[in-house]
Amino acid sequence: MMIIMKSNATPQQTEAVIAKIKDMGLAVHLSQGVEATIIGAIGETHNIPTEHFEGLDGVDIVQRITQPYKLASRQFHPENTILPIDGFTVGGDEIAVIAGPCSVESRSQILETAQAVKEAGASALRGGVFKPRTSPYAFQGLGEEGLELLAEAREKTGLPIVVEIMSQVQLDVMLKYVDVFQVGARNMQNFNLLRAIGETRTAVLLKRGLSASIEELLMSAEYILAGGNTRVMLCERGIRTFETSTRNTTDINAIPVLKNLTHLPVILDPSHSTGHAAYVSAVARAAIAAGADGLIIEVHPDPAKAVSDGKQSLKPEAFAEMVNQVGQIAQIMGRRLAATQGNVQPLKQGWM
Amino acid sequence: MMIIMKSNATPQQTEAVIAKIKDMGLAVHLSQGVEATIIGAIGETHNIPTEHFEGLDGVDIVQRITQPYKLASRQFHPENTILPIDGFTVGGDEIAVIAGPCSVESRSQILETAQAVKEAGASALRGGVFKPRTSPYAFQGLGEEGLELLAEAREKTGLPIVVEIMSQVQLDVMLKYVDVFQVGARNMQNFNLLRAIGETRTAVLLKRGLSASIEELLMSAEYILAGGNTRVMLCERGIRTFETSTRNTTDINAIPVLKNLTHLPVILDPSHSTGHAAYVSAVARAAIAAGADGLIIEVHPDPAKAVSDGKQSLKPEAFAEMVNQVGQIAQIMGRRLAATQGNVQPLKQGWM
Amino acid sequence: MMIIMKSNATPQQTEAVIAKIKDMGLAVHLSQGVEATIIGAIGETHNIPTEHFEGLDGVDIVQRITQPYKLASRQFHPENTILPIDGFTVGGDEIAVIAGPCSVESRSQILETAQAVKEAGASALRGGVFKPRTSPYAFQGLGEEGLELLAEAREKTGLPIVVEIMSQVQLDVMLKYVDVFQVGARNMQNFNLLRAIGETRTAVLLKRGLSASIEELLMSAEYILAGGNTRVMLCERGIRTFETSTRNTTDINAIPVLKNLTHLPVILDPSHSTGHAAYVSAVARAAIAAGADGLIIEVHPDPAKAVSDGKQSLKPEAFAEMVNQVGQIAQIMGRRLAATQGNVQPLKQGWM
Amino acid sequence: MMIIMKSNATPQQTEAVIAKIKDMGLAVHLSQGVEATIIGAIGETHNIPTEHFEGLDGVDIVQRITQPYKLASRQFHPENTILPIDGFTVGGDEIAVIAGPCSVESRSQILETAQAVKEAGASALRGGVFKPRTSPYAFQGLGEEGLELLAEAREKTGLPIVVEIMSQVQLDVMLKYVDVFQVGARNMQNFNLLRAIGETRTAVLLKRGLSASIEELLMSAEYILAGGNTRVMLCERGIRTFETSTRNTTDINAIPVLKNLTHLPVILDPSHSTGHAAYVSAVARAAIAAGADGLIIEVHPDPAKAVSDGKQSLKPEAFAEMVNQVGQIAQIMGRRLAATQGNVQPLKQGWM
Repeated sequence: MMIIMKSNATPQQTEAVIAKIKDMGLAVHLSQGVEATIIGAIGETHNIPTEHFEGLDGVDIVQRITQPYKLASRQFHPENTILPIDGFTVGGDEIAVIAGPCSVESRSQILETAQAVKEAGASALRGGVFKPRTSPYAFQGLGEEGLELLAEAREKTGLPIVVEIMSQVQLDVMLKYVDVFQVGARNMQNFNLLRAIGETRTAVLLKRGLSASIEELLMSAEYILAGGNTRVMLCERGIRTFETSTRNTTDINAIPVLKNLTHLPVILDPSHSTGHAAYVSAVARAAIAAGADGLIIEVHPDPAKAVSDGKQSLKPEAFAEMVNQVGQIAQIMGRRLAATQGNVQPLKQGWM
Repeated sequence: MMIIMKSNATPQQTEAVIAKIKDMGLAVHLSQGVEATIIGAIGETHNIPTEHFEGLDGVDIVQRITQPYKLASRQFHPENTILPIDGFTVGGDEIAVIAGPCSVESRSQILETAQAVKEAGASALRGGVFKPRTSPYAFQGLGEEGLELLAEAREKTGLPIVVEIMSQVQLDVMLKYVDVFQVGARNMQNFNLLRAIGETRTAVLLKRGLSASIEELLMSAEYILAGGNTRVMLCERGIRTFETSTRNTTDINAIPVLKNLTHLPVILDPSHSTGHAAYVSAVARAAIAAGADGLIIEVHPDPAKAVSDGKQSLKPEAFAEMVNQVGQIAQIMGRRLAATQGNVQPLKQGWM
Repeated sequence: MMIIMKSNATPQQTEAVIAKIKDMGLAVHLSQGVEATIIGAIGETHNIPTEHFEGLDGVDIVQRITQPYKLASRQFHPENTILPIDGFTVGGDEIAVIAGPCSVESRSQILETAQAVKEAGASALRGGVFKPRTSPYAFQGLGEEGLELLAEAREKTGLPIVVEIMSQVQLDVMLKYVDVFQVGARNMQNFNLLRAIGETRTAVLLKRGLSASIEELLMSAEYILAGGNTRVMLCERGIRTFETSTRNTTDINAIPVLKNLTHLPVILDPSHSTGHAAYVSAVARAAIAAGADGLIIEVHPDPAKAVSDGKQSLKPEAFAEMVNQVGQIAQIMGRRLAATQGNVQPLKQGWM
Repeated sequence: MMIIMKSNATPQQTEAVIAKIKDMGLAVHLSQGVEATIIGAIGETHNIPTEHFEGLDGVDIVQRITQPYKLASRQFHPENTILPIDGFTVGGDEIAVIAGPCSVESRSQILETAQAVKEAGASALRGGVFKPRTSPYAFQGLGEEGLELLAEAREKTGLPIVVEIMSQVQLDVMLKYVDVFQVGARNMQNFNLLRAIGETRTAVLLKRGLSASIEELLMSAEYILAGGNTRVMLCERGIRTFETSTRNTTDINAIPVLKNLTHLPVILDPSHSTGHAAYVSAVARAAIAAGADGLIIEVHPDPAKAVSDGKQSLKPEAFAEMVNQVGQIAQIMGRRLAATQGNVQPLKQGWM
């Protein structure tokens, strides 16, 4: 970490900064130039917030040289993490496709969807039972009853299940059922929840917050990793910007940036990042072409009847077509779908 | 709620929309114009998400006419809510000034700060004991020990205490101590927490999320109100934008917009909304001039030694000067500081 | 256009709105429901700003049903526009790749780059001679001398040239040289410039502004089309958001959204939309997979010596590799590179 | 400027950076620490873009120590610039209030408005004659005829006139009439226009772009100042964010930040920054309380009939009330309205 002093900083102010660095058990490297005095703080600085120095008198700029995360960093873990989930892997050659409804609504709905996405080539089943809804008057999910239905769907299809957890008080009941925890965008900085999940050894799909920077996403992953749970995958799901023609803005840059900064698998959620069924396949293909390790997709047998997210849910046949397209892009990338049985079809000419 | 059909929608699609409206127990008003068919859904629509119709075939635009919140709306509650807190009120003629350190760090620090902000004219004491930190390696707060120190400070100064709650598992211990819960920006959509607080009758200061719209802030207030807890005040604390010269962007527009939409008190947090001690007073004055009902300000006896937020914390003397300035603006607005003893001084000429 | 009156609007206010609609030569469709009075304005409303009604007393919401642009809309022009440029087409089966340096710096630099990008498979040559620089002290471009060098490069390679125009006073000199005008992000709403270009019949690459909505981009295209110049292609080049790890945020959603709304070709500029050479290829592949009609890429023979944008410029060999990757994605999409001679190579295994 | 090398940078890469610094006529200060090699570039660095180094191999971070602008910086010009305009000053003790319609529409409209704003206490008259309209089909302004009407209004009221210029081709005709050029948000980075205005000695009101950073606003001011025109005032007019309840987001932080960074006067445009007449006065008061040097306000005698911006225009009586409120805030700030005749009235109790 480098602390650049203001041009009119006094020697006493410089001394105070140096003293504070030493107090923290760090070494000091002082460089007094013509225009600026620069003080280097050397040692284990990744766990020291820059604000510790920004408030000091005479300090102009505090510039971090090393990243504020360590366990998530590719610098200390150059090889890709390859997470084995029941029946497939994420982060290696296989492309994971997690699919299913926004909410578990009924036995027939979830069993029908599970069967359909399985046949279309999905690797895992998603379904919400505790729903974070903007309105207190909206459907809040089936709770444990929904978990039981998901477990039944898993039994029938062999697909592992991915379910959102909203609070650490749901942890015990969730642990009885789920294969992968999903932490939603609104909970990316629910640090109590992150710590609780860090204590388990269950895989986690950690979604980026609506206005979370890439660095903050990695810091939230660090919370889970610091608890000893290394089974973390990251998920870009769109960020909030001024553009209103889509629900969110897919930050496709985040795919190569994350692959560069971290060894953790990175997947994309084009359902939420676009908010419109019509745009999901295009962005799903883009994600795989950009180097993503997988996708999570909302699929509903009858989107018009969905209690939530119907607008952005694919029908099973559209999902099957999307899987086919994504499979071909995967091949170009030297990869393959985690659960495809080799029945891919050529894309239509000039597909939008 | 109005559903505008696409120009090429079929009669069957229109029928399906009408059927769905009736299924929800709403009345239908059909208007078939030359260019568009418009279907009005009439009745208790504030609790129906627009997405229920957006996913239907043939639907072009769904336009809400009534607000999606009801208890928070000024429409159904035209008079300002005036919240009595121990020793003062928020939302009426009095301007509340809540002040104190970001984190409770030690007995001497919190007692000294409490005394200083009391003398400078604060109406309540803030202090964090459970800290939402971006990094798992940063100081996470003193926990219950901090609550005890705050209680001691309250006893010595008579100032009620405002403390952030991060999770519903902290509710029981918090209830033993705090006068006002603070829900932080990162938890504005922690719906489990909001519901839990809604079950209590303790006052709440609900902060706007970093990228939450004003409507979403009101929907989160609605969660608390729906539980029967009507003691809610809202807090603008800056939103995340592209501008990097300040920590956040103070959305000063939010003050008159919220005062127009809701009867709940609205306060502003210029410490977080600017992130720099040098800009806090200017934005505090602006808030009161724009019609805010109060302020929450970070004050630390020695910001250089603060374990968090030192950069944006005022020293007690700067805080006293700010209170003085704010008091004069309050007078112009026909209001008065909640706890001023009438010792305001004239502002310096041409104060920046 | 629909005007929804406030629930407490008076009959006089409704009458005033109706009178104003009739004044504009539009027909009126009145629908008085239980909860709201809705007034439809019927006719040529695409050229009427909604603000004409938003300021009227008693008006609650003004909702446009038809798009505010007409010539750019796919609704009135369902087939893709296929623009012939010298030697290739944009908007049909061919994928255009425009490449070259940010600025023309010297004869050797531009001739060398032109040769290199030609060999790697580019369809056109880009190069700036009038440079929009944030700082008045930065290199502002070679002006007409640069245009002569570009013309020489065209003669030697056969590549048509794409050059940014910053002001209508540059129009005459530019017309002598360029094959395609580029309108930069900062000039997307320089309406005098758009009108001037609309008077010509030279092809235009219109870049989206840093904070322009997709609708505003189409309105700017409408300015050019309204002048009779139909040779317009649109360019997504990243938008400004809170994320700082990349120069801009590539709005990949904009590709399918634009292809849905307009018949005009859509290309992507991953050099500006990422700002880092290391991320350009991943985002270029994503663009083509999402359905883009082409790319514009910064290439420099020695990025370390570039006077501008060196950080985001590819070296010729990296560009050649990118063209190879993009060509394979194009094939999957049922398309082909505009100028490839069929020497594509398989992608490396698991390419990031 | 400091260049921080990557931890694995080679000595050759460090040498290349040093050679480039020396080539630019700057001195080098090398600091080789344990964790990082830092190279300081010393001398006239404000005119050197950081990108000159960011693209070099082995470079990790380039950190500017001095600001990239010089003429606009308070560092080299600590005293406030006080601009004399015809009849008043901006930047000193006087608070300027510029008011008038969005567009000049007719002789009676502009003369009536000029008289009304004069009586209410305005210091200058605004009115657009060349209008930057999103739609090519919208009213584009009266052109020179409008300038003649403004000149007549000036003659009748004594108010100097402030008029937007959109292109350097309008410069000659504008110079015959206007007292203050307005450069609109969409032209803040129209560098040709800025240079052309820099050659004149006419005062300029430079508006911040919709997504321009504060630093970029100052760089655009630097363009004008570099031409020798020192009569520049800056204008915050709202930035584009995700919030949709107002037209833009007023960045009130920008007032104290700009007053800190530059000696130039800073005014605020609450009409555009809120987009709603109902919110203009609250934000106008906030601006003056935050330290702004003036306001620019849209006023129309009959907003319902305005051809543009009716929604955000104040009626003359509402404007007069706003001036009264602002005058009282100014007094608290130790300042006074530029043109008030001392007839201010007390604010209503608890004014929103």
